[in-house]
Amino acid sequence: MTSNDGDAAPDAELLTATTELGDALRELIETSVTTTVAAGEVAAAAELVRAATARIDATRRSASQLPRLDDPSEGRRVFNPVTGIANPMAPPLVVRQDGDGVVAEATLGLAYEGPPSFVHGGMSALFMDQMLGSAAGAAGLWGMTAHLELDYRGPLPLQTPLVLRARVESHEGRKAFITGTIALVSDPEKILVEARGLFVMPRPEKQAAYFGAITDATGRHAPPRRPGDATALRLA
Amino acid sequence: MTSNDGDAAPDAELLTATTELGDALRELIETSVTTTVAAGEVAAAAELVRAATARIDATRRSASQLPRLDDPSEGRRVFNPVTGIANPMAPPLVVRQDGDGVVAEATLGLAYEGPPSFVHGGMSALFMDQMLGSAAGAAGLWGMTAHLELDYRGPLPLQTPLVLRARVESHEGRKAFITGTIALVSDPEKILVEARGLFVMPRPEKQAAYFGAITDATGRHAPPRRPGDATALRLA
Repeated sequence: MTSNDGDAAPDAELLTATTELGDALRELIETSVTTTVAAGEVAAAAELVRAATARIDATRRSASQLPRLDDPSEGRRVFNPVTGIANPMAPPLVVRQDGDGVVAEATLGLAYEGPPSFVHGGMSALFMDQMLGSAAGAAGLWGMTAHLELDYRGPLPLQTPLVLRARVESHEGRKAFITGTIALVSDPEKILVEARGLFVMPRPEKQAAYFGAITDATGRHAPPRRPGDATALRLA
Repeated sequence: MTSNDGDAAPDAELLTATTELGDALRELIETSVTTTVAAGEVAAAAELVRAATARIDATRRSASQLPRLDDPSEGRRVFNPVTGIANPMAPPLVVRQDGDGVVAEATLGLAYEGPPSFVHGGMSALFMDQMLGSAAGAAGLWGMTAHLELDYRGPLPLQTPLVLRARVESHEGRKAFITGTIALVSDPEKILVEARGLFVMPRPEKQAAYFGAITDATGRHAPPRRPGDATALRLA
């Protein structure tokens, strides 16, 4: 077993394997929350999962070191919990520019359930926060969430294609005011969730305090400093 | 392989195996986003994960059928994405009554990251939505999120014990106004995230429209109808 530590360049083989693991885990999570097989089979699956962990836990990065596959200068964050292709908690949302904002589609499984057969209300908030941050990134801004508010006009059904949108309404200095919506792909004009957010770029001294210890995979200092860095934007 | 379909009673062996799989997946997710091993090992882990899925995908429930282990009358929802012991996306938050509200602690790993080394702002929103719903349940109320707003006063560090609180401030008819906070366990008076929410119990005709097709694992109609049902409260 060799370590790829110290290699910051995108590595096609690693990206393929990492994406494959993310996809496999996403499928296993959804299967695990819906399976009706006997307890013995579930226990056997748990044993295989522990074996998978044993294959990859020999060397691990710390929270201050970015992943090998990330490129903050491009806004590529493969483990982002909403947009990261390799984070199995992420659907993932594939965010792309559309007109003066950003758009993404998602169809959510039972792992995202709140009230029976509907998306958890907090998941809508999680996705909207990411979409608002991605809209900031697409507009050449970046910031951290200072205020977020959401109106829920109707529940979002599971297993149904959803369309998520966001755009920067205005910005001044370090502040950006951003709005977003969620609707069904089949009825895009009927807004079911509406979000408004204020994103603020931290002052230089705060940025130094928050991100002063962050390094890339080679150990070089790599704080968020360009659009998308802190908001995990990945335009497809 | 036998199916446990039709058995709605809590099944200790199934609960143990299901919890074990949830725990194993939670550990694998965190390992997968932090590992620095070579691509070949990551690919081998993906293969094991696909084998795990194959062990449990023979029979699956639909979105309108509750899991065998759930008991809506007790508010037990094992796959809730925030509090569910068997949903690997959930830390899980173990929510308990405390004074006139509810409290939970959590230490979040890199799978929950937004800006480098900090919790994703949307994750705070997801957790607060759940805590507000749990506070409603603990007060004998239930409802679905109608409005949620959050002020972010400071970023939440990863790998650091957090304390989350919520309580019902007032309620009238079908509406409940609920607040919540997140702070560091080491500095609980300094509020880093503050949330306010309006939760509304749907009118009977809406409840019928939303949940009319929901059944328990035996096929009996089982809409949310008691505190905790729709908010996935599990008091420990």
